[in-house]
Amino acid sequence: MNNSKTAKDYTLGLRQSELFTKTRKQAPSDEVARNAQLLIRGGFLYKEQAGVYSYLPLGLRVLEKVSDIIREEMASVGGQEIRLSTLQDKSVWEASDRWSDENVDVWFKSKLQNGTEIGLGWTHEEPITKMMKDHIQSYRDLPRYPYQIQNKFRNEVRAKSGIMRTREFLMKDLYSFSRDNEEHARFYEAIALAYMRVFVRVGLEGITYKTFASGGAFAKYSHEFQTISDAGEDIIYVCEKENLAVNKEVYNDEVLKDLGLTKDDFVEKKAIEVGNIFNLGTRFSQAHNLTYKDEQGEDQLVVMGSYGIGPNRLMGTVAELWADEKGLVWPASIAPFAIHLIRIGDSEKVVGQADALFETLTNEGIEVLYDDRDVRPGEKFADSDLLGIPVRVVISEKTIEAGTLEVIDRKTGEVQNLTQEELLADSTTQE
Amino acid sequence: MNNSKTAKDYTLGLRQSELFTKTRKQAPSDEVARNAQLLIRGGFLYKEQAGVYSYLPLGLRVLEKVSDIIREEMASVGGQEIRLSTLQDKSVWEASDRWSDENVDVWFKSKLQNGTEIGLGWTHEEPITKMMKDHIQSYRDLPRYPYQIQNKFRNEVRAKSGIMRTREFLMKDLYSFSRDNEEHARFYEAIALAYMRVFVRVGLEGITYKTFASGGAFAKYSHEFQTISDAGEDIIYVCEKENLAVNKEVYNDEVLKDLGLTKDDFVEKKAIEVGNIFNLGTRFSQAHNLTYKDEQGEDQLVVMGSYGIGPNRLMGTVAELWADEKGLVWPASIAPFAIHLIRIGDSEKVVGQADALFETLTNEGIEVLYDDRDVRPGEKFADSDLLGIPVRVVISEKTIEAGTLEVIDRKTGEVQNLTQEELLADSTTQE
Repeated sequence: MNNSKTAKDYTLGLRQSELFTKTRKQAPSDEVARNAQLLIRGGFLYKEQAGVYSYLPLGLRVLEKVSDIIREEMASVGGQEIRLSTLQDKSVWEASDRWSDENVDVWFKSKLQNGTEIGLGWTHEEPITKMMKDHIQSYRDLPRYPYQIQNKFRNEVRAKSGIMRTREFLMKDLYSFSRDNEEHARFYEAIALAYMRVFVRVGLEGITYKTFASGGAFAKYSHEFQTISDAGEDIIYVCEKENLAVNKEVYNDEVLKDLGLTKDDFVEKKAIEVGNIFNLGTRFSQAHNLTYKDEQGEDQLVVMGSYGIGPNRLMGTVAELWADEKGLVWPASIAPFAIHLIRIGDSEKVVGQADALFETLTNEGIEVLYDDRDVRPGEKFADSDLLGIPVRVVISEKTIEAGTLEVIDRKTGEVQNLTQEELLADSTTQE
Repeated sequence: MNNSKTAKDYTLGLRQSELFTKTRKQAPSDEVARNAQLLIRGGFLYKEQAGVYSYLPLGLRVLEKVSDIIREEMASVGGQEIRLSTLQDKSVWEASDRWSDENVDVWFKSKLQNGTEIGLGWTHEEPITKMMKDHIQSYRDLPRYPYQIQNKFRNEVRAKSGIMRTREFLMKDLYSFSRDNEEHARFYEAIALAYMRVFVRVGLEGITYKTFASGGAFAKYSHEFQTISDAGEDIIYVCEKENLAVNKEVYNDEVLKDLGLTKDDFVEKKAIEVGNIFNLGTRFSQAHNLTYKDEQGEDQLVVMGSYGIGPNRLMGTVAELWADEKGLVWPASIAPFAIHLIRIGDSEKVVGQADALFETLTNEGIEVLYDDRDVRPGEKFADSDLLGIPVRVVISEKTIEAGTLEVIDRKTGEVQNLTQEELLADSTTQE
């Protein structure tokens, strides 16, 4: 209903001469994680302090794409987006005994001017349970699936895995509110599938396993989603034939029996936890007295679950895994741009044709980073390899003479000579 | 390039039976501000504690629309979006003498596990100046206009104006980095115009004034954007004929002389500060030694400016002003939905036609909240008035018999009987 130019239109195309970030040869000397090293060198990130990063234009674009994929999959299972506050009221957490630093060791706490203690949200079970009391009274008000993509703060002792474990990070946290265990179980299965769709879409297909992990008072197991990587902090045991895994913490005779498998079926791997889902049962609804009237008019406790994915960690995991010795290799789905258009030479003809192609591509709705800088070709190619945009298109005197464009696949290195029409056809049909 | 369903497609239409929030007759008794009273009653907001609010689905939709309008206007003047961290490093702020609580009285501070003090960002001049040192070396790297829409934390003593003054809020803060005062001044004028476009687009046209306010070491005046409202905390003096205003803090003989005006030209008004722009000069570039090499190879300090708009405050201002005794009256540009489709009756015929219209409208890309609940018509209409969606469309046995739809303008109360084709034509042409 709005025909004016949208923010998305403005940001479809970007001239690299105007992009304020620069690449750099070296990451900060204290940065040991490959994901952060590459992302800082590419100008995606800025390291504020250990475990705290800022997101620059290219990095924010990737983070937003990851977040939007998560949004789509949460919407597909009925999620409704909200945004809860960071500042947390002590009393809300005391009800479930999670305020004290003895019970929870990751709180950042501060004080209002009048001395009242406040905390920074490291998760949101408590406040959302309390809030939902305003909106759940009857069985007709269930089930409900609010979620948010919001900053969490965790006072981690160590922060050493780049953007995979930080003190400040986005979390997609969805909370389910169901009538009973059966309704809960149906959603739990549905969102587990939605999670796998997220991991497939961001480029982690085939290496991400639904993993049995420790449960709690209300379920024997919770489930993590673990992506195989030597950069991971977790040890899991993968069963290829069943396409599942077991976290070391519950890898014992009991779980083998529950799964009908033996140790011979599993291989030990290091992995990154990219998501998790929990059956919370009635722990929080009991603490906050979140009940509903059932069809007989009886009060019942709401059955809850919580479901987390960290967009920054997911981005870091992809950066860690989708890279080669030259730099990043983004999957198309979350790349900051679809095409890296590189102009070699500054003759009127080359500039004119490159400018025209930039306009044509962006008019077609294709996201293009256009290297229009006056720097050496070698520097342009090295930067392009580092940034990892999936498709590189080169325009030079030589390509103009040939009447085609040089199109290089960042991942395979495959070079094709395509006409503009062929490039457009390719770019607008593939995702 | 992506033909799958996007998050936007999923959220174009929403059945009210599935919306998890409910309206309520009364706001919390401690809530004195009209904007928060209405927004809480409508289920847009949840009050976590004094000065801290969470955003529920309808509220988040409005907030995102306000933010997107700001994004578009920032992009239109060359802004590049980033996201800086909340957690702040003490040493970065000590360089400009803004760490101590004596100098800055709104810090929230906390500690890492090892005892290191950290602060929560209440503005970002210091970290962005330091970060830009990585990206500005030469005059060719200027000007630059990074901005973010990011949570700020301010330890306000009082919080009493609903979402217009809170301890946690989004801020759009853009920082300009220019070669000299002249380049700075050109951008300052351009962004002042972009600000006015934002205020016009969100519905504050004709009541929002560029207002002279106190400057600092580098400029005689800064400028605020003030919206006339009795709910405002500021006193300004408005000159209608010049379409400008002066904040009480600098309303003196000198400013009158500078403007060539007299006291007779001004009328005193209460107003809400909805934006502000500052010339920072070289204060922060000096503190952090942010310099560039000019065309002669000489080192020069970068000239900076900062430019703020608070999306939550802007939303609160609109809620405060665009309301009547029945509830909110959103401008179309930031309404949570364009159309509130209301089904009266539950016969197969009515349900079938209402469902079909819901589908037709959303297929046309129109955002529709569909009241498909089994509640009394009076309750539906009262809720609809409270939520304030611009256009209400009613389907009932009566309208089906008449062969038209009853279409009511929330603002004027004007009722039209339109065919579906006429409604579609109206809805897809207007913004």
